[in-house]
Amino acid sequence: MRGKFITFEGPDGTGKTTQIKLAAETLRDMGYEVLESREPGGTKLAEKVRDIVLDPKLPLNNITEILLYLAARSEHTEKILAPALDAGKMVLCDRFGDSTLVYQGLARGLENAQLDFLKEINDFASCSLQPDLTLVLDGSPEVFLSRRTARGVKDRYENRGLAFQEKIREGFLTIAASDGNRIKVIDAEKGLDTVHAAIMEECLKLLKERE
Amino acid sequence: MRGKFITFEGPDGTGKTTQIKLAAETLRDMGYEVLESREPGGTKLAEKVRDIVLDPKLPLNNITEILLYLAARSEHTEKILAPALDAGKMVLCDRFGDSTLVYQGLARGLENAQLDFLKEINDFASCSLQPDLTLVLDGSPEVFLSRRTARGVKDRYENRGLAFQEKIREGFLTIAASDGNRIKVIDAEKGLDTVHAAIMEECLKLLKERE
Repeated sequence: MRGKFITFEGPDGTGKTTQIKLAAETLRDMGYEVLESREPGGTKLAEKVRDIVLDPKLPLNNITEILLYLAARSEHTEKILAPALDAGKMVLCDRFGDSTLVYQGLARGLENAQLDFLKEINDFASCSLQPDLTLVLDGSPEVFLSRRTARGVKDRYENRGLAFQEKIREGFLTIAASDGNRIKVIDAEKGLDTVHAAIMEECLKLLKERE
Repeated sequence: MRGKFITFEGPDGTGKTTQIKLAAETLRDMGYEVLESREPGGTKLAEKVRDIVLDPKLPLNNITEILLYLAARSEHTEKILAPALDAGKMVLCDRFGDSTLVYQGLARGLENAQLDFLKEINDFASCSLQPDLTLVLDGSPEVFLSRRTARGVKDRYENRGLAFQEKIREGFLTIAASDGNRIKVIDAEKGLDTVHAAIMEECLKLLKERE
């Protein structure tokens, strides 16, 4: 049976990486084969593209950024995600198409026609692969900013201030509202275990559906 | 006054690079300011992308290749081509959108709907910048293959054999037939000077139009 594709979305600092690890462990304990991956990245080429996109010394225009992310996504989808799903694995992915729509679309103030076109290119790049479930880790930017600062990580994306993070949050909530079947919003301000439990509840609902 | 944008297209080995140099010299002698550029490339980021695309050790799927070329084109258009044209320069460019349509579209057997979408993404990447004149250097693949072999250059693109080069040739002729106003086919089997004269004739026609 084909595996399930679950993506984790939300602003930086919401704990996606940690929660993916926890979810993967729990699912493995339950007997599932699980692949963890992340975007942009996942293949040798995609990691090279990631280095270009995240290099703070290489300023990019919005269109170039979109195309580079999608080039990486195309490789990642074809070589990693699709084969794993075909082999019946559960795939947990840190960011996917919704991040493109939010970061390069909604947060940049793209109009509806441009957003539709962005969705089209995204479908083209990912050969129309859609997540079965998307978990948006949500909460107040102030809370996540302080977590991020505590981690001491700085790159182009994690250095943009509260107003930007608020836009990103709103973007994800807008997308979640437009597709409540696929996208579930998780309160990520809560403690690690509570967030993990909420995530597992959604994962188990999805797995039950297919039985 | 805005400068004119002239692109040089055709299979590898047709002498585009040499002819661009000759045309640029002649135009400079006539008093024009001329910028020579090439695709993929032209900016620091685009050259990095070029290295990835042309690396024979990194096999790419067709969609990734398209998106990488277009990412490079977006940077090149925004940072190099558009400013030069705005400054009134003549811009001579080795390959542009037509190469994408031929190499990643027609030569791969893409259907009409996919080709239309490829045109759309290409417009998106190049902010709808269109050449004022496109010169397709045309001739028999046998002739060009022997020229290429004599040059001793080998990369992913120059190593594909006659059947492929014939497809490329046909692709460019198909595109030329669909837009005879913009695209002129130059017989590139002729000697250097004859080809140069034919190219200059088309360039001068274009320059006369704007007076």
